[in-house]
Amino acid sequence: MVEQKRKIINDPVYGFITIHHPLIFAIISHPYYQRLRRIKQMAMAQLVYPGAVHTRLHHSLGAYHLMGNAVNELRSKGIAISTDEEIAVKAAILLHDIGHGPFSHALEHVVVQGVHHEQLSLQIMEKMNRDLDGQLSLAISIFTGQYEKPFLHQLISGQLDVDRMDYLSRDSFFCGVSEGVIGYDRILKMLTVHEGQLMIEEKGIYSVEKFLVARRQMYWQVYLHKTVLGAEKMLVKILERVRSIYAKDDEALQTQSALDFFLGSFNGDMNDATLDLFCSLDDHDIMHALKRWARHPDKILSLLCNRFLNRQLYKSRIQADAFDKDFVKEKEKQASEQFGIALADIGYVCFTGEATNTLYQTVDERINILFRDGVVKDISEVDNALIHQNLSAPVKKNYICLLT
Amino acid sequence: MVEQKRKIINDPVYGFITIHHPLIFAIISHPYYQRLRRIKQMAMAQLVYPGAVHTRLHHSLGAYHLMGNAVNELRSKGIAISTDEEIAVKAAILLHDIGHGPFSHALEHVVVQGVHHEQLSLQIMEKMNRDLDGQLSLAISIFTGQYEKPFLHQLISGQLDVDRMDYLSRDSFFCGVSEGVIGYDRILKMLTVHEGQLMIEEKGIYSVEKFLVARRQMYWQVYLHKTVLGAEKMLVKILERVRSIYAKDDEALQTQSALDFFLGSFNGDMNDATLDLFCSLDDHDIMHALKRWARHPDKILSLLCNRFLNRQLYKSRIQADAFDKDFVKEKEKQASEQFGIALADIGYVCFTGEATNTLYQTVDERINILFRDGVVKDISEVDNALIHQNLSAPVKKNYICLLT
Amino acid sequence: MVEQKRKIINDPVYGFITIHHPLIFAIISHPYYQRLRRIKQMAMAQLVYPGAVHTRLHHSLGAYHLMGNAVNELRSKGIAISTDEEIAVKAAILLHDIGHGPFSHALEHVVVQGVHHEQLSLQIMEKMNRDLDGQLSLAISIFTGQYEKPFLHQLISGQLDVDRMDYLSRDSFFCGVSEGVIGYDRILKMLTVHEGQLMIEEKGIYSVEKFLVARRQMYWQVYLHKTVLGAEKMLVKILERVRSIYAKDDEALQTQSALDFFLGSFNGDMNDATLDLFCSLDDHDIMHALKRWARHPDKILSLLCNRFLNRQLYKSRIQADAFDKDFVKEKEKQASEQFGIALADIGYVCFTGEATNTLYQTVDERINILFRDGVVKDISEVDNALIHQNLSAPVKKNYICLLT
Amino acid sequence: MVEQKRKIINDPVYGFITIHHPLIFAIISHPYYQRLRRIKQMAMAQLVYPGAVHTRLHHSLGAYHLMGNAVNELRSKGIAISTDEEIAVKAAILLHDIGHGPFSHALEHVVVQGVHHEQLSLQIMEKMNRDLDGQLSLAISIFTGQYEKPFLHQLISGQLDVDRMDYLSRDSFFCGVSEGVIGYDRILKMLTVHEGQLMIEEKGIYSVEKFLVARRQMYWQVYLHKTVLGAEKMLVKILERVRSIYAKDDEALQTQSALDFFLGSFNGDMNDATLDLFCSLDDHDIMHALKRWARHPDKILSLLCNRFLNRQLYKSRIQADAFDKDFVKEKEKQASEQFGIALADIGYVCFTGEATNTLYQTVDERINILFRDGVVKDISEVDNALIHQNLSAPVKKNYICLLT
Repeated sequence: MVEQKRKIINDPVYGFITIHHPLIFAIISHPYYQRLRRIKQMAMAQLVYPGAVHTRLHHSLGAYHLMGNAVNELRSKGIAISTDEEIAVKAAILLHDIGHGPFSHALEHVVVQGVHHEQLSLQIMEKMNRDLDGQLSLAISIFTGQYEKPFLHQLISGQLDVDRMDYLSRDSFFCGVSEGVIGYDRILKMLTVHEGQLMIEEKGIYSVEKFLVARRQMYWQVYLHKTVLGAEKMLVKILERVRSIYAKDDEALQTQSALDFFLGSFNGDMNDATLDLFCSLDDHDIMHALKRWARHPDKILSLLCNRFLNRQLYKSRIQADAFDKDFVKEKEKQASEQFGIALADIGYVCFTGEATNTLYQTVDERINILFRDGVVKDISEVDNALIHQNLSAPVKKNYICLLT
Repeated sequence: MVEQKRKIINDPVYGFITIHHPLIFAIISHPYYQRLRRIKQMAMAQLVYPGAVHTRLHHSLGAYHLMGNAVNELRSKGIAISTDEEIAVKAAILLHDIGHGPFSHALEHVVVQGVHHEQLSLQIMEKMNRDLDGQLSLAISIFTGQYEKPFLHQLISGQLDVDRMDYLSRDSFFCGVSEGVIGYDRILKMLTVHEGQLMIEEKGIYSVEKFLVARRQMYWQVYLHKTVLGAEKMLVKILERVRSIYAKDDEALQTQSALDFFLGSFNGDMNDATLDLFCSLDDHDIMHALKRWARHPDKILSLLCNRFLNRQLYKSRIQADAFDKDFVKEKEKQASEQFGIALADIGYVCFTGEATNTLYQTVDERINILFRDGVVKDISEVDNALIHQNLSAPVKKNYICLLT
Repeated sequence: MVEQKRKIINDPVYGFITIHHPLIFAIISHPYYQRLRRIKQMAMAQLVYPGAVHTRLHHSLGAYHLMGNAVNELRSKGIAISTDEEIAVKAAILLHDIGHGPFSHALEHVVVQGVHHEQLSLQIMEKMNRDLDGQLSLAISIFTGQYEKPFLHQLISGQLDVDRMDYLSRDSFFCGVSEGVIGYDRILKMLTVHEGQLMIEEKGIYSVEKFLVARRQMYWQVYLHKTVLGAEKMLVKILERVRSIYAKDDEALQTQSALDFFLGSFNGDMNDATLDLFCSLDDHDIMHALKRWARHPDKILSLLCNRFLNRQLYKSRIQADAFDKDFVKEKEKQASEQFGIALADIGYVCFTGEATNTLYQTVDERINILFRDGVVKDISEVDNALIHQNLSAPVKKNYICLLT
Repeated sequence: MVEQKRKIINDPVYGFITIHHPLIFAIISHPYYQRLRRIKQMAMAQLVYPGAVHTRLHHSLGAYHLMGNAVNELRSKGIAISTDEEIAVKAAILLHDIGHGPFSHALEHVVVQGVHHEQLSLQIMEKMNRDLDGQLSLAISIFTGQYEKPFLHQLISGQLDVDRMDYLSRDSFFCGVSEGVIGYDRILKMLTVHEGQLMIEEKGIYSVEKFLVARRQMYWQVYLHKTVLGAEKMLVKILERVRSIYAKDDEALQTQSALDFFLGSFNGDMNDATLDLFCSLDDHDIMHALKRWARHPDKILSLLCNRFLNRQLYKSRIQADAFDKDFVKEKEKQASEQFGIALADIGYVCFTGEATNTLYQTVDERINILFRDGVVKDISEVDNALIHQNLSAPVKKNYICLLT
């Protein structure tokens, strides 16, 4: 890897993404990274927004691109960032989602129980670091927040990190939802560093407001769209059903992939061998399993799988208040009769729950605004700010899903 | 299906697509149509253009949208199109690609040997027509070119049909290749009908020129990009290898999907039962098979599958002239030694071929320009036209693919 | 005007605008309408946003285009709109700004004292109606809110009228301010009519929120940008200076245009003759006057004109609280000394004032949301709404402008 | 000018333009440069494309932005460009059009007879250089092609200079003509320098083709649109008429601006005093003059001016062959009778001429393609190139303009 290469990737969101460092090439060429090509960024959102089929790989390339812009911008304001730090923070953002499994958030904790994707990202980064003779050590130190310049970590993970900037930009772009468009380029130009912390210059206040409003709108219009939510719950229910009827010798449940291990034998210990198995999983394994299970003799399993494949999803409803218990009972009874399913199993065809828009958001972080006179305030404390408690607090809504 | 519904679908290319007729709903809800969600429009182009992951379903929805615009435009110019004809021509364009199998063109004739996708589209449409009590009869008559108004067929399949307008617009959009952008809205506004034939008004000449130049650029920059071409050939080689070592009792080749049937037992007779099997195939079956075959004991098969999954593709080169025979021999020898593969099997790791940009284009069709004085000329005969033989004739190039 | 014409106008914001009715052609060809080509939509905003040079004519064509879409949308939902009503409401929106004078809002009440632009629009429409043999009568009835279908008037003038939708879309487009982009196409698709009133369907709530937030951001980032505000105040100060030193026989103040009349002899009586004079005024008269007055012996007048032409504008500041009186005194003294201007005239080089963002907004109107169950609520009363008093109430800020 | 400033300008075409060097600030603040705000880039094109009202100032800022990108790109490929050279080449591109007079090309040689705008640009740059203590010397040396690195001059003026890249991008953007969109960002990424000359890398061939086709389309659809051409000829005819009836003591011809001098007394000697007068001219002077002359007793002059102001333009036609002489005679006779104009003056209401698309293009320059093996070829010599003689040669067309 001595040869100095330079590669340009076309990106419909940003135009062109440039790659020019051997370590970046090494990461992108790694099979673990290439696996992200086979994981959709937005899971089942494509059932409502047909364009939403972009991948985790594309998102992480986009975040990498924004990171490059952020670094250039901060440097032009006199903030010192060495070449090593630049490459490290870029490597870290490329790898920040490497621990995602099939269908990303939709199946988190479902396929691999009890392990969070960020923990997996870290474990995978450490494994790759050994392969790469420690070249990722600085990246890992920044990723975990241990490095001495906190703003570098905040660029990866914070209220205004390039991760969020990319996923909001990219998701709204591929969905065709103009309500989610943010002015990422203007926010980047407004970034600054004050006492080691990432901040926004005073005249960027309106861009930040727009960012927060866009995020809110993406939650309610897209990420928690009732049909998307219903489809993702259906996927979860399918995997729950498989676990509940799982038997080692039921060949009709076996799917010829690592999924068999994680559904059958996995005991929660993520060692090098199991991590490697995890890194072979992608969306195709789930989809193949669904197509196979659609022919399984278990009535509930095959029902749900067929419905899913043919996009005959739950009818879902979302509302502020909890659903009336009698209403739910009534619906359960109706579904039980329609599908001949015992009330003990009714949760596969009729259920309620709470959705909250905190999924991506970290409540305890601030968006610091740096005023010209050196004063620092959180965006919610700024005079005439649009953003108060109602935007910063999580919002809970109730949903009901019903097969009809 | 008496209830009059109306649905709006967000599309990043056109904004919104509106659906409002029961027959259109029935088609879109059909499992055969929903299958198109699981087939990528551009096969392996995403290995070079990461955004190119959009689906056949999305493309056919887009073409349906443009068809609606074309119908409105022609009507506003006084061309009679009845409501039945409108719905029929929209149904036909929705279904024009229903016969595509996994990875579309890339695997045509490879998975299902000897059957063209348009023939399959027709067979599937006829099957759906029986389910829908003949509601598709007019659509089929237009699709096959038998209906009395030829311009309706030409809107589906002709030099300036909405199929091409959508795929050029959509493919260039998702690839982020501005060179392929066409002014579809202006072309639509320039459409007219003269003596039953679809034509372009005189002042649309430059828009047609741009369309043809954009198509040409998409061929050489995207559809026949050397790496994309290499990746698609690798997929073909993998399936060829499977066929060549195929044995019914080799469990390690079996993939738990309809692919097993088409690789093993299919005798070329596409009847209702086999058609139904075909309609269960999608990209996931191929990807699952590749992941399985990557662990197969056959050295060549597992080599190619692993390479493909990890994006370690053939090094490809494209040039005008045929490759020098000695040069090819040299490369073959080199590959044979590197991978320990016998010269008899060398075609799996080193091969040459011809690529031509006629794939989508029908040489014997014309683009008729209607002048204000009633004269009709083909675009290539227009004074000062950019487009001469060099654009209308197919161009052949030679390629070499080599595993390194 | 018997010949049925059809014309397509390229518009960078919406693609194409189609014109196809004799009355619409007659309006657009009228010299009063063509005058709008010579009036900038955003006055001096181009001094900060160089792209903001689009015209009142372009804006009114854009609003006309959106009106056509709105009519089609409402009709597709079964709301009856006759062809006469369609043409009338389109004519009305084309003419809604016909009463604007040079530099639109910036010089309203300054060039022609005591007359509001909407009153002038009405007077000019009535004059044109006489020329057009009463063809505009229905348009005028809708424009003035007297017609029996209130929703038609609300499409022209209301919280969600096509006027606002166009100016926000167009202004943000030409400024290159992504914060102001609204999803006009989605809002249009969400329009409906309930008991004669224009409403928004329930699922359009987030689009309306985005519209209101975008409008708010355009106010503070663009319309009331401190430098734009300062430039527009400078223009006002120049005209005030001319009035204060005006003398009929001062040839150096005369500008060879109708401006001379409105600065000199106009007594507030807008009759047919003075209206015709008004309709000859445009931005060029003001700019010519400034270039002439830059050479006038009055020191203050020539100072301000030269400064304006060379973009050496007031230094402006905007803040929530009123400026400290001593601070202002200090600045006045400083300016007085720097420019040798008596304190009596200090208001030309240093002054304070209040800016408020109600300019375009009508406080007493509602945005009605129609829920699926038939309930109607104002957007501010909707559960989980972002928009409360803080957005609907006008916001006042204080500014200071100082020549340095 | 010691303070280090940094300013961001919103641009709808490129997003943001950054200014950060004292010399660049000094140029932009100069009254000569600010004058470009008052000169439309596309003269009368706005009569057909209402969005085409952008200014020379905006164009030169855009070209400056692209120059910055080009410099970064070349540097990243190892081509040495010092900071002084960077600032100089940016200063030169900012000033390359400083010599344009009112309505740019439309009135070149008409207002100021016998002086080319590039010669004026140079004279004005030299004058500004004296004001700026020689800070522009290097810029001038690059501008005139005398500097030792020819590629810097070629970035300003050559077949693929940033001037053309910006005006094609900007003009097509503001017109809303998608046919003129070029992939400027990809062309910039393909730029390289070989033996001191600016070249395009091999894989940029299709982008260059697209650039040339887009330019061709802008000529025929926009720059030489028959109505635009007619309007610009009308402006020329008006000034010709004024010259032909010019008399010093005809007060009704006087316009209170420097135009009076250039129409009356200018003898072709461009010295410091006359140059300063020239630098006071802008579009407003012409428009004011037209409004004044519309009331002049000369029948032809007032006719043309009124027609122009009310957009009652010549009916124009463009065709490949010369117009038939009898046809022209017939039209002249008809116009003479209709307007009561003597045949001696018929050229004001009916005339023919030749339009050619070489206006911006320099025939004797090449677009050099640098192949991977070091070979250099002109684009027209590349295998399978679209671009042959027909694109590189100028095309002449004949027009007729007729007042009706």
